Amino acid sequence: MNRNLKLIIAYDGSDFAGWQVQPGLATIQGKLAEAIAKITNQEAVVHGSGRTDAGVHALGQVATFQTTSPIPPKNLLIALNDVLPFTIRVLEAEEVAEDFHPRRSATAKTYRYRIYRQAVCPPFIARYVYHHPWPLNEDTMSEAARQVEGVHDFTSFAAVDPDRLKRIAEADDGDDAAPSNVRTIFQSSFRRDEAELIYEVRGNGFLHHMVRNLVGTFLLVGKGTLKPCDIPDIMSARDRTAAGATAPASGLALVNVEYSDKQLG
Amino acid sequence: MNRNLKLIIAYDGSDFAGWQVQPGLATIQGKLAEAIAKITNQEAVVHGSGRTDAGVHALGQVATFQTTSPIPPKNLLIALNDVLPFTIRVLEAEEVAEDFHPRRSATAKTYRYRIYRQAVCPPFIARYVYHHPWPLNEDTMSEAARQVEGVHDFTSFAAVDPDRLKRIAEADDGDDAAPSNVRTIFQSSFRRDEAELIYEVRGNGFLHHMVRNLVGTFLLVGKGTLKPCDIPDIMSARDRTAAGATAPASGLALVNVEYSDKQLG
Repeated sequence: MNRNLKLIIAYDGSDFAGWQVQPGLATIQGKLAEAIAKITNQEAVVHGSGRTDAGVHALGQVATFQTTSPIPPKNLLIALNDVLPFTIRVLEAEEVAEDFHPRRSATAKTYRYRIYRQAVCPPFIARYVYHHPWPLNEDTMSEAARQVEGVHDFTSFAAVDPDRLKRIAEADDGDDAAPSNVRTIFQSSFRRDEAELIYEVRGNGFLHHMVRNLVGTFLLVGKGTLKPCDIPDIMSARDRTAAGATAPASGLALVNVEYSDKQLG
Repeated sequence: MNRNLKLIIAYDGSDFAGWQVQPGLATIQGKLAEAIAKITNQEAVVHGSGRTDAGVHALGQVATFQTTSPIPPKNLLIALNDVLPFTIRVLEAEEVAEDFHPRRSATAKTYRYRIYRQAVCPPFIARYVYHHPWPLNEDTMSEAARQVEGVHDFTSFAAVDPDRLKRIAEADDGDDAAPSNVRTIFQSSFRRDEAELIYEVRGNGFLHHMVRNLVGTFLLVGKGTLKPCDIPDIMSARDRTAAGATAPASGLALVNVEYSDKQLG
């Protein structure tokens, strides 16, 4: 009988070419599939809650795979961590309802972007932050961040790339039928944690590069190139060129993915 | 005129073959010498407060080099961090008295050893801890750690290797005339910081592998193989085989090096 197994995974994305399997490249999805095949002696298709790009980290990515292996989730967790590189860790494993899908069942996701503000970045966190020691008006950045809360069309913050339509269709919004760039942002804010300026955003789904493009735009506000009141106009433009550059991958981490209790069945 | 420049340096030792220059290998001393040569257009000999082994980290290693370059220390710091890998950071730079020597002038050094105690080690700290999720009696380890405080012969905790005598002569005790394995330990203790058991030791000097061999021995106490009251006997034996195995390099970091105010001129 097929079992649907759900994993919560943390990874350091520094040394990986992103989540998605790519021939000849080390990816998180690829390493997980290899490890599962080794443990269960079965080929496995690993579904994630969404892709993360090369260099992007995760504190709580969610993935599932189907298997007929009878291995108890507790043992699976230990066995997977035994064969995975130390940069990928399975934090939790459990059996879930057959219809649970990590992308389609998701109700919210939270991302965090860490900006290190002091002159010299400690080597121990350099992989996990964007080092930006230059002046920034953090108050106007906070004000700008609040502008994107609510229901908006985020076309101006979505990557323009050849795969665009495919990516939209496959994106993490759980709405395959009507590809759309409208997303709901429940919370978008900056806070200070000692030497770090931290952006945290929680929404019902995110377009490709959306968080990094938001941060790149908020950085322009911090530098004074844009004002917080420009953000609504940038959203209305529905044009990628209206917003700022994509912020570096190293600062970004997927914090967690939320599901309704029903869906975890 | 020759100036004596002092640097305080932090590094992630994971990707280096230790402090000391070795042909064909990436070392901290080697990377610093290359960077200084590039900035000052002069070959430089870099002296450290002591060697750290492959995989060992530093939060505040101290080094000096002599140069006739007139570069202000503030500019040197920025320029060096510009050309060094992000895993090596210069935290401070200043000109010091001609007779200041980072090893011979040192009055104390502090090392920290981090043991991660929970079942799954987060990928973001795995490079900086020793992952030991198995049972340990942390109370007896604390008691054992206190036994080494004071003036003792640490031969039982010194690496036995072909370079031994050379290393003793060159060790960080500032006493070239009379190589000896006697050291003074001012403080030696364990503390808990959430999921981590942290050993911190401050002394007037340390023999090769001494901190890792102490930790390896305290781990045997934690497992019940040894008792805290065995530590004095192990020291008296003056025999490396009397003590425990060398704990892994990843958990160890040189925290800081102390000097008397006079010596900093």
